[in-house]
Amino acid sequence: MSRYWSDIVHRLTPYVPGEQPVLAHPVKLNTNENPYPPSPRVLDAIRRELGEAGESLRRYPDPTALKLRETVAAYHGIHANQIFAGNGSDEVLALTFEALLKHDKPLLFPDITYSFYPTYARLFEVEYRTIPLDDSFAINVDDYVAPNGGVLFPNPNAPTGRPLPLADIERLLLKNTESVVVIDEAYVDFGAESAITLIDRYPNLLVVQTVSKSRSLAGMRVGFAFGNAELIDALNRVKDSFNSYPLDRLAQAAATAAYEDDGWFRDNCAKVISSRERLAAGLTTLGFDVVPSAANLLFARHPGHDAATLVLRLREREIFVRHFKAPRIDQHLRISVGTDAECEILVNALREIFGA
Amino acid sequence: MSRYWSDIVHRLTPYVPGEQPVLAHPVKLNTNENPYPPSPRVLDAIRRELGEAGESLRRYPDPTALKLRETVAAYHGIHANQIFAGNGSDEVLALTFEALLKHDKPLLFPDITYSFYPTYARLFEVEYRTIPLDDSFAINVDDYVAPNGGVLFPNPNAPTGRPLPLADIERLLLKNTESVVVIDEAYVDFGAESAITLIDRYPNLLVVQTVSKSRSLAGMRVGFAFGNAELIDALNRVKDSFNSYPLDRLAQAAATAAYEDDGWFRDNCAKVISSRERLAAGLTTLGFDVVPSAANLLFARHPGHDAATLVLRLREREIFVRHFKAPRIDQHLRISVGTDAECEILVNALREIFGA
Repeated sequence: MSRYWSDIVHRLTPYVPGEQPVLAHPVKLNTNENPYPPSPRVLDAIRRELGEAGESLRRYPDPTALKLRETVAAYHGIHANQIFAGNGSDEVLALTFEALLKHDKPLLFPDITYSFYPTYARLFEVEYRTIPLDDSFAINVDDYVAPNGGVLFPNPNAPTGRPLPLADIERLLLKNTESVVVIDEAYVDFGAESAITLIDRYPNLLVVQTVSKSRSLAGMRVGFAFGNAELIDALNRVKDSFNSYPLDRLAQAAATAAYEDDGWFRDNCAKVISSRERLAAGLTTLGFDVVPSAANLLFARHPGHDAATLVLRLREREIFVRHFKAPRIDQHLRISVGTDAECEILVNALREIFGA
Repeated sequence: MSRYWSDIVHRLTPYVPGEQPVLAHPVKLNTNENPYPPSPRVLDAIRRELGEAGESLRRYPDPTALKLRETVAAYHGIHANQIFAGNGSDEVLALTFEALLKHDKPLLFPDITYSFYPTYARLFEVEYRTIPLDDSFAINVDDYVAPNGGVLFPNPNAPTGRPLPLADIERLLLKNTESVVVIDEAYVDFGAESAITLIDRYPNLLVVQTVSKSRSLAGMRVGFAFGNAELIDALNRVKDSFNSYPLDRLAQAAATAAYEDDGWFRDNCAKVISSRERLAAGLTTLGFDVVPSAANLLFARHPGHDAATLVLRLREREIFVRHFKAPRIDQHLRISVGTDAECEILVNALREIFGA
């Protein structure tokens, strides 16, 4: 608290990211990182950009990330002016709140979802109303057909991993034409259907993606928005009033190369999906209720064990999972899908804890 | 224009960064980049972070950039909690507008200064009043002793390069205790005195710096704010409501290493200062009026030649300088200091143009 702070600073509730333990070999299943490294082509591209002496690093990067956007556009069969690139999908979402979701009517998003959304809303003074998930943690899109200044949810949803069929999203778009519908697809590549295929038909659809999860580049901070060129223009106008050069040269090179190695991407997604199914089976055998997931995470509760206590018991074994002290979900664990070996360590640890 | 845009988007005047020509060998003296590459230690640090397989890139970076801040703190003899690290000093400035400069009374900054300031003010809806520089483009700090919600100027000033003695800044701080004074030191290392030495004594002083100019890392997007821990806390609260992880792993590694090679930094600054003095002499010989500069740029006008025309004539020769179509300065060129060879190409080209 300080008299020098702007009023808004007093009213913020900053987001708290998952812990980054400094242990040598933690079993880190708490921030939904990919268990596999990025494509070797990513490494090559970074080394190429560095060159012998890092000569290019003294120069500003392309403020529009054109080559990256053209590569991603070709990948999705769309135009570069339908893509916005930002410093991680968190920045893309923040700029989206400011550029497209701040209206007189309230923004709608689920009561259980990415916990950054209410934080953005407070920063940008966006009025919002939360819509309860049903008892199975499913989104019913008909609940969002109400007067609103925007609709926002992840598909698959966070922190549940539960996916929504594309047909439901299209049904919402047919009914909700007066405000922007934002689908946050951070986890989409692990088994859900992307709405990017719909952007040509719905001028109020914005799809947000990231290279942090499925492309193993959480460390490089690159995210995208896909939509009608007018929506992208709004994001560019805000970005160019905030920070002209959000993506450094190595991040642009890395993300571009990640899209150029589709085989690596597909193989890793398939491995994560396979590990997820095996982990879900293991947890179910131990008595957990596991939410059906199309993400690289599982959301699970055990009827006989307190979630916060389980987190502590696992932490003692240097195993990290995420827990949210929030209504309706404070008995759930959010477990990132690691390698099969990591998942097995977790399941064995839980078995030990339950046996003790 | 779109009905889906938030109201604010219609009112923005986005900043336009200097052109990034795609020519093979332009003489690029338009965006104040350092003519010398970063330290070899920077390259080593990036390669070390990459490792064999880029294994660390799949993991989120440290959201607090602690190692970087500790390194920079040790360099300046201050504490890490007196430093904020952001995605270039442009992002640091943007967050500063939101966190510390938005008050009922107007923000004060010079009429001729970094042209991003009014853009930030419009985005964050910060009322501002510009204070005219005197006829020699000097800042008189006494002009800023007036009711205000904040004071902001660069030292040396942009785009003039003209420095202000530290004693003047301290005089302002003694008189202006009720609002934050932000000194934007993007160019300070080329001959001005940093106000970082004053942050322990003035709780309302915030100093902003960047690795883009003097540390040859424009391509990596790292900037800092230095100040009382309460001011830094405000920046962190806004940052953690906007984007938890603004600095990627390679940017953190690069910037840390840049501070660990002080000899490289000092040598390059000395070379740039020497080239600046030689270029100033060359321009003066050609009849230019050159503003005294302590930055890696010169701000100069020729009484006999229209500035916009000179820009075009130079551009034909693949020589890029910056020109601002703004009141009082539309007959000036802003010329970044390149290598001696680049400066000589510029001076010879101007001589040719004048002779033709």
